[in-house]
Amino acid sequence: MLNWGITDFYMHTFIYQDLASSFEALIKDEVFKVGDKLPSIRMLSKERGVSISTAFKAYLELESKGLIEARPKSGYYVRFSPKHLQNLSADIYPEEGSRIENVDDLIQSVYGSLDKRAEISLSLNVPSTELLPVAKLKKSILHVLRNRSTQSLSYEDVRGNQLLREQIARLSFNSGIIVKPQELITTTGCMEALNLAIRATTEVGDAIAIEGPTYFGIFQAIESLGRVAVEVPTHPVSGVDLNALEDILSTRAIRACIFMSNFSNPVGAKIPEADKERLVRLLESKAIPLIEDDIYGEMYFGSQRPKSCKSFDRSEGVILCSSFSKSLAPGYRVGWIIPGRYYKKVYKIKFHQTISTSSLSQEVIAHFLTNGRFDLHSKQLRRHLYIQSLKYLQAVHEYFPKDVKVSQPQGGFVLWIELPKPYNTLDLFQRAIQHKISIAPGQMFSQQLDLSNYMRISFGAPYTAEMDWAMRVVGELLSPT
Amino acid sequence: MLNWGITDFYMHTFIYQDLASSFEALIKDEVFKVGDKLPSIRMLSKERGVSISTAFKAYLELESKGLIEARPKSGYYVRFSPKHLQNLSADIYPEEGSRIENVDDLIQSVYGSLDKRAEISLSLNVPSTELLPVAKLKKSILHVLRNRSTQSLSYEDVRGNQLLREQIARLSFNSGIIVKPQELITTTGCMEALNLAIRATTEVGDAIAIEGPTYFGIFQAIESLGRVAVEVPTHPVSGVDLNALEDILSTRAIRACIFMSNFSNPVGAKIPEADKERLVRLLESKAIPLIEDDIYGEMYFGSQRPKSCKSFDRSEGVILCSSFSKSLAPGYRVGWIIPGRYYKKVYKIKFHQTISTSSLSQEVIAHFLTNGRFDLHSKQLRRHLYIQSLKYLQAVHEYFPKDVKVSQPQGGFVLWIELPKPYNTLDLFQRAIQHKISIAPGQMFSQQLDLSNYMRISFGAPYTAEMDWAMRVVGELLSPT
Repeated sequence: MLNWGITDFYMHTFIYQDLASSFEALIKDEVFKVGDKLPSIRMLSKERGVSISTAFKAYLELESKGLIEARPKSGYYVRFSPKHLQNLSADIYPEEGSRIENVDDLIQSVYGSLDKRAEISLSLNVPSTELLPVAKLKKSILHVLRNRSTQSLSYEDVRGNQLLREQIARLSFNSGIIVKPQELITTTGCMEALNLAIRATTEVGDAIAIEGPTYFGIFQAIESLGRVAVEVPTHPVSGVDLNALEDILSTRAIRACIFMSNFSNPVGAKIPEADKERLVRLLESKAIPLIEDDIYGEMYFGSQRPKSCKSFDRSEGVILCSSFSKSLAPGYRVGWIIPGRYYKKVYKIKFHQTISTSSLSQEVIAHFLTNGRFDLHSKQLRRHLYIQSLKYLQAVHEYFPKDVKVSQPQGGFVLWIELPKPYNTLDLFQRAIQHKISIAPGQMFSQQLDLSNYMRISFGAPYTAEMDWAMRVVGELLSPT
Repeated sequence: MLNWGITDFYMHTFIYQDLASSFEALIKDEVFKVGDKLPSIRMLSKERGVSISTAFKAYLELESKGLIEARPKSGYYVRFSPKHLQNLSADIYPEEGSRIENVDDLIQSVYGSLDKRAEISLSLNVPSTELLPVAKLKKSILHVLRNRSTQSLSYEDVRGNQLLREQIARLSFNSGIIVKPQELITTTGCMEALNLAIRATTEVGDAIAIEGPTYFGIFQAIESLGRVAVEVPTHPVSGVDLNALEDILSTRAIRACIFMSNFSNPVGAKIPEADKERLVRLLESKAIPLIEDDIYGEMYFGSQRPKSCKSFDRSEGVILCSSFSKSLAPGYRVGWIIPGRYYKKVYKIKFHQTISTSSLSQEVIAHFLTNGRFDLHSKQLRRHLYIQSLKYLQAVHEYFPKDVKVSQPQGGFVLWIELPKPYNTLDLFQRAIQHKISIAPGQMFSQQLDLSNYMRISFGAPYTAEMDWAMRVVGELLSPT
């Protein structure tokens, strides 16, 4: 269930896609192995009772994913199977005793370098602008320009644009959340939502449990607000380890938890649905609020949107934080928070932290969503991301040393890569930046674990010749000379 | 010097304006008293050696400001002199010992009421949209739409849009600040700038000196961040009392000060230039950072932009916070911070508080400013605001009881009104809201002072017949029955 999800991949709309999917499964299961010849188009058409054109399209689809290749005057051959990559160590990340002091400096230096030196980014956890609906958003801007110029100039309601909140309430339904527009507040991106949640649920000095590893913004925000981050051992596939969490809760006074429910950053883990419920019940029983970061949940590769923890919430103790930054418009800075029983506190802090979220950005996104453009766009985005994930995985397979292990993402934007110990990905970062290529060293994602032999590579950008070159260079830098 | 500034009012472009200004001064000095007949247009033309048309325009100008009126077949008469209004008590606000507990609830209830019940707002400290350059901003949006769609979708640099920072650096020069674009950071409005400054300069439990009275968002932000607000006695005209401040600094460990330098909210005080320098030197000598809120400085009625405290800063100890929310686009949420020696800290907190400010909003404002549209717009805005201030003052004169005292704003958007004790403006608020009119009760602006006989009235909206009605209703509610 927690595997590729290829067979239940979403786009079962056309016959050729069904056909392609069934071949994908056969390649993954190594019924067809790398190098094997596939049935000819004519034979396929005959055997499956589909038209020549449908058979051709199915192979084109597999080719576009990099799984097969056409050899001139010979036919189609299997080129790549994700099976051939080594999975990450199935163990949860080992907890180290010592706190790593220089993580902040590391993050600053990595991000500082990006501005100046990197031209090819493999390090940013966002979709590239090619995957964003630039033209359709233009139409929404034009609409705002023509009909809502004055409104988009005025202070918005502290809670956010009414139309947009209605659309977010609808969108939330996909992850199992029943919420009214007046029960959520729009924010300046997910990061503001997380800040509000931290401030509303905890006091200075309080301990907050987070995943180890996790997105550095989370532990930086916690520290900067004078709270203490406690990293909970985390499984590379199923996310935060609930047994470990229970142990920690029984020995330490944890005042809140911040976990990513789906396609977590940086490891790409997804908490299984049963565990989500178990997690919510566990925290409910101890009256500990769960701050759920579900910013990647919409970018699923499987057949349906995974649920949020919030959907299992019976006591208004889960605070959901998300945004449009990963799915639609990173720069617009529009996110939201569903604060549950912390609504009043969150409202008040939002009011004197930023007063309200940009009216202009909200108006544009509200129009985009109201016109049903978001569903179509996110379908396309998911499809592109899935194909890109395969291409980048294939590059790892082709260019990286054989002892490299890699995550098998079921959604999101990133590959989490494990190198044999001892390896220092910070050195790799320094050497790659000489070639104007940036990667994200593992050490950025924890203050308590030794992740120096890990790195995060983003597949948010289309796999172009330039990206192929970059992956090859990284592979060469990784190989023993 | 701290008076009306009528004679040195900005718009000395045309002869008729010079002529009108000289009459304004004569009316203010009561050379011409209310009810006096003015020279006929023919006589004026002859005496001053100007054309009939120029003389006519000068009177039209005075009429538009509500200072004179034309009576049919009779001529022009003085209608109003601001001199006739009682000035605010010249005393600084008395400090009370007891902390007022319910200010937060009051603010929430006032703002909650606004959403639902008020149709005519005399309570919001912003320019109404009629005064904003809606059409010209549309052009800037179109420019972004055509040329910068992709950029406006992507995450902006944490520090903010480069072009915009260049323009803010130029704008800062008007208040005497020499700053490079790389020394400032754009923010989600001035409120985020203030939050960043508080977090960068102080720790939880630290005391921060503020004006009493001041904008409630400031003491709410301080409290919400676990710091302690200490209100410093403040003069209604010259702002924070420096002697009182010195006393407080010698007895309490104050870790930072937040003061509004120009046209403060709610009293409209402007710190005299000499006092600004004295203030900066005083805090410099004690190594206490000054967080300067200069959000209203651009809305001056005098001949030149008042200086900022930052312009006297020699040790990078002044943190300037401002925004475009009061001058251009409240809803866009674009402000800035010049953090001085706290740059690195502020940068880091900004990064994990909201990551960056809305790219779309920044792109639009950057284009607007780059095209020189801001200077022209703010000239017009200042002129409108000045005229509106006179109209609202006149309404106070005409409709409010004679024992009402009122501020004489030199800039900004608000009148600060003092009623004879005992008077409860919260009751007034409740009664006015029955007529769908909102005013801002004085008690919203302090946690430590008894301001129940004060209120703030905004002149940010053009003085229409509806506003005239609203001022009349408020006047009736104020009058003893």
